[in-house]
Formats: sequence, structure tokens, C-alpha cells
Amino acid sequence: MNPFWSEVVHRLTPYVPGEQPRLQDLVKLNTNENPYGPSPRVLEAIREATGDGLRLYPDPNADRLREAIAGFHADQGIRPGQVFVGNGSDEVLALAFQALLRHGRPLLFPDITYSFYPVYCGLYGIESVQVPLDGGFRIRIEDYARPNGGIIFPNPNAPTGRWLALADLEALLAAHPGSPVVIDEAYVDFGCESAVALVNRHPNLLVVQTLSKARSLAGLRLGFAIGDPGLIEALDRVKNSFNSYPVDRLAMAGGIAAMADRDHFEWTRRAIMATRGALVADLADLGFEVLPSAANFVFARHPARDAQELAAALRARNILVRHFRQPRIDQFLRITVGTDPQCRVLTAALKAIL
Amino acid sequence: MNPFWSEVVHRLTPYVPGEQPRLQDLVKLNTNENPYGPSPRVLEAIREATGDGLRLYPDPNADRLREAIAGFHADQGIRPGQVFVGNGSDEVLALAFQALLRHGRPLLFPDITYSFYPVYCGLYGIESVQVPLDGGFRIRIEDYARPNGGIIFPNPNAPTGRWLALADLEALLAAHPGSPVVIDEAYVDFGCESAVALVNRHPNLLVVQTLSKARSLAGLRLGFAIGDPGLIEALDRVKNSFNSYPVDRLAMAGGIAAMADRDHFEWTRRAIMATRGALVADLADLGFEVLPSAANFVFARHPARDAQELAAALRARNILVRHFRQPRIDQFLRITVGTDPQCRVLTAALKAIL
Repeated sequence: MNPFWSEVVHRLTPYVPGEQPRLQDLVKLNTNENPYGPSPRVLEAIREATGDGLRLYPDPNADRLREAIAGFHADQGIRPGQVFVGNGSDEVLALAFQALLRHGRPLLFPDITYSFYPVYCGLYGIESVQVPLDGGFRIRIEDYARPNGGIIFPNPNAPTGRWLALADLEALLAAHPGSPVVIDEAYVDFGCESAVALVNRHPNLLVVQTLSKARSLAGLRLGFAIGDPGLIEALDRVKNSFNSYPVDRLAMAGGIAAMADRDHFEWTRRAIMATRGALVADLADLGFEVLPSAANFVFARHPARDAQELAAALRARNILVRHFRQPRIDQFLRITVGTDPQCRVLTAALKAIL
Repeated sequence: MNPFWSEVVHRLTPYVPGEQPRLQDLVKLNTNENPYGPSPRVLEAIREATGDGLRLYPDPNADRLREAIAGFHADQGIRPGQVFVGNGSDEVLALAFQALLRHGRPLLFPDITYSFYPVYCGLYGIESVQVPLDGGFRIRIEDYARPNGGIIFPNPNAPTGRWLALADLEALLAAHPGSPVVIDEAYVDFGCESAVALVNRHPNLLVVQTLSKARSLAGLRLGFAIGDPGLIEALDRVKNSFNSYPVDRLAMAGGIAAMADRDHFEWTRRAIMATRGALVADLADLGFEVLPSAANFVFARHPARDAQELAAALRARNILVRHFRQPRIDQFLRITVGTDPQCRVLTAALKAIL
């Protein structure tokens, strides 16, 4: 008991991210990174911004980056005043929990979902209720028909990869007009429709996205939210009470270039979706049961082999996948979709192990 | 009243950073940036890190950066386990307020100080008492002899530039062994002794520093804290409940290089201190009363001219300085120490205005 800790610190159970080993020559399929590098235009923009200008603070409002993100979504009628940016989507989510999801009524999210959500609840003292996924690991919107102070889930959900159609999201929003609803779209670019299309009709909807996945910039830390200007104002108020300058000059330059390069974005996400199709087929051939996935990972279990043992056996072959010691899913592996050769290494190793 | 805002959002009075105009050709002496660029080795290290590796998450613990910071302070016996890093020292301060300064007893800080402190108190619901500086705008440690849940101030103080000697800090720490004491050393490298020397004797001391000032990296967003491992653990627990990866790969590479280049660090801080001496003399010649400063700015008032009018007249000449509409200091200007030519432009303009 350190006497200098604030009381909240004692109660925290911090989030544990996937392993980031320093070892080389690993087939790293454990943290849902993109196997392809970022756009060359992003690298060029960062190199151009790498100069004496780093002595100056960045734009605290990141206006040009907000404009670039709005520009990408211009076909949905999104304006810069509907965009918030942060130091990775985890920061954006944290600020959303603090600014929008604490209402003295329970926040609802699935029992199987991004494991950072209960951590945020602990940090901000938010009461929550975990709503069980159905037997097929699906979110059923009718299960959310209960008093609440907000609703949050990823779409597609993590670590399952399953997703809801836009019509289901719209029904959920219509059923809860008094509740803030946050749709966490970290994986939306791999085969799922974005709720950004609903923002202009639903002032209670906040959509959170990241540049870590389809734009291959996990190492640069950029995330954003799109929603009604009233929701964005709440995020800005908390951000400006926490850290005036969360997005640095290099991330700003890289992020603007990333939003502008649609061709690279389309190419990389389509390549990953194609590889995912082959990976799912190969895993099925090996006897795995694989959940349908609209993400850059698959969630699979083998009826005859313990998941933790499989993960350890892969680890011994320098292949990292993610295993969660958690009720209902402790027999699953979450496997990031890598390149075709990486996925072949994985399936060959699994064949040898099985 | 937006119904989706958490209650805390309504009560916030966010921090207002100094203006970051897009205009060129300004003499920008308003946000205490370094007039000299960062070390060429920093730029080189960033360029080397600008590649496909950006697709991967950074090390969530930033171990190599913590090691580099500990290495810089190795003469004080600092080990990596005594170092915490964050996305700018504002983030480090915010996490320190949340993790270490909320105890149900009032936090003490000066009435004239970094204006973000009361904002953090508002965000985290921390009760505070502002302890008046003396008539010479000095912190008097005897004024802090009252029940408290923590003490924080910058040394040198901002925006005054005045500082306390190490012996005074040690007396303060000895007088409050049960209170966390945070010394915010954003400006310590411009003529003030660092309290890092006291860390190994005082488990209640946290020292916060930044790479934005003497290391010319305001645009990269890097700050750190040094203290007892028990305090660092509290910061890590909150950080890992907020954002696993607050420091991106490019900032990590640049920060490591910046801590290693002692020559550049020594050169730039000495150049600024030399220019400060000349600036103080020139301002005195113009009739200004200038507080003693150990920072990269000076705090000055003219007995015959209104400070806000002076700031506006300088603004009309494309020279930015900072003016605070705040009791006791509304007749002062805070002027960043620029290059020698920038300071000559400033004093020539002031001469013309006066």
C-alpha cells in the first residue's frame, strides 16, 4: 500500500496489450497489425515534416487532420466540426468514456468484447452491465432493451470478428434516442459497413476509427471519432482539460497523407480480405471451427485441441497468436490475417502440430 | 445542455494554450518554444524510423526511452524503473494528478503558476488551495505548512521565471513526508538546479520534465517523470488503464537520440541563457521591471504602459508575446527568449511603441 497513490489506483485492473517482442524472425499474428507497410506518401510526408519545425508545438486542434478525415467521408456529408482526433483510438475511446458515458446508469457492452472497456469503467467509475453474446457469439440488439446510460461495442466485434448490419445499428439507435451509442470501428474497413453513414441522422451516435489497421499506422498512434458537433464538443472539452497537444507534428503530417491516399488504403484492405478467405478455408480443412469475420483477424477453435496448448506450440515455432484466458472463449485463438506466405507458415505449423 | 455529456463536462473550464498561428514571418515569442532546431541526430533517428515498421505498435512500456532518460541522469543514480514517459509533459502531469494527487485533502499550488493545474483539478475532482506568491512573486515554502493532500509547482515557476534552490525544495520535502510533492521542471535546464538529485532520498518526490524546451521537441510531444518506483507504478497503472501506447515509434526514436546528444542540449540551453541576459538588460533600459528568470522566458512589466495594449501593439507588428488576464499579473508580459536577432526585433519594436 503506497500512501501516495490516489484511491482509484488501488482499484484498477489495467489493460494488458498483446506481446510486442523485440525478437526478429517472428511470424507476428497476435496484435492485428497490418502485414503491409503504410502508404509511401505517408512516409514521404513524415520525412518532409522532420526538420527544425519540430521545435514548435503542433496545432492543438489538429484542424488540417480533421479536415482530411472529413474529406475522406465527404460522401456521407461529414464536416470537420464533426471530427475529433486523438493519440490512437484507445485515447479517443478513453476520452469518450469520460466525456459521454458516465451517467449514473449502467453502460452496456457485450460480455465478449474489447477488454479495454471494463478497464475504462474502472478508471472513471462507470457502472456497467455486460450483455451476453448469443450462442453463435453474435450481438443481438434486442438484448440491449434495458435502462442504460450508454451503449458501446466494436463493429465488427473483437475478438470474435462478427458484425452487425447497418440496419441493425439504425434500429438500435432509434430504440435508444436518449443514450449515447459509441460504435468502435477499429476493424470496419475489412468487410463491414460504417456507421458514419448514420451520423447525420442520429445526434447520439459516435463512431470511433483508427489509422492503426487498414492504414498500417499502429506505430504512429492516430485515432478519430465522428459524430454530432455536440458530442465532439464534449470530447474537445475533456481533451483540452487533459492534454492540449495530443497529436504530434509527424503524426499529423502522416495522418493527412494517409487519409488522402485512397488507392493504398483500398489495395491493402482488399489484399487482407482475400488472404482471410484463403486462411479461413485452410483452417476449416484442418478441422477448425472459424467464426465469420469482417475483421483483419479470425477467431477459431479446434474441437480436439486445447487452445492454450496450441498457442504455446505455435509460440515454440516462433509464431505468435493471441489466446484469452476468459470464460466462453478460452478454447479460441485470435489469429491476425498476415501476408499469404505468413498464413501458409501458420497453417503448415498447425498441420504439423495437429 | 447536451443530454449526452457526462456531468463533469459541464463543469470544465478547459486550458487555453498560447496561439499557434498559421501565419509566416511572425516573431513568435508567445509559447516558450526553443528558437533553435532539435539535434541533427534526432532528425536522423526519426528519418531512420520512418519506414514499414510504422505498421507495428510501439513498445507499450517505452523501455528503451526510459533507459535513455535514466542514462542521462545516471550521475544521480537514476534507474529505468524510476522513469515514466508520456505524450508530452502535460499528459504526464495529467496522469500524476489522477494517480497521485487526489486524497480528499486540498492540493496546494501557487496562485500564480501554470494555469493547467486548476484545470486538472476540475477534470479529476481534486480540491485545491492556491497559496499566494509573496510580493516579489516568490514561492515561500513556509506558506505551505498546512494540511494538504499534495503539493505541486513548477521550478522555475511559470509564468514568473523565479525559482527555488535545492535546499528549499529539500526542506519542503522533509516538512511534508506524508504528501506527494510534484516538481514540474519544464524550464529547469535554463539555470535552475534539478530536484532529480533528491529523488533517491525522498519517496514522495516526483519530478516532471519535458523534451519540448531545452531539447527543441515541442512538436514531437515527449515528457517524463522521475521518482520512486512506487510513484512510477501508480503512473503506469493509470496509463495502462487509459492508453497502452501513448508514445509513438517516431517520438521514441527521436527521444532516445535527444537524450544521447548532450552537446546539442548544452549548446542550445547556454545560447538561450546568454540571450536572456542581453534581453533582460535591454528591457531594463526601456524602463521595464523584469523578474529574475531561470527559464527560457522573462516576465516583465512597464510602469507606464498597459500590458494588454503593449501586447496588442506588438501583435500589430507581427510579434507575439503572451499576456494573461489574471489578477496580480495583468500588467505583465511573458516573453519567450528567442534568437539574438528576434530579441533585437522585439526591443526595437518596444522602443518604437514606447
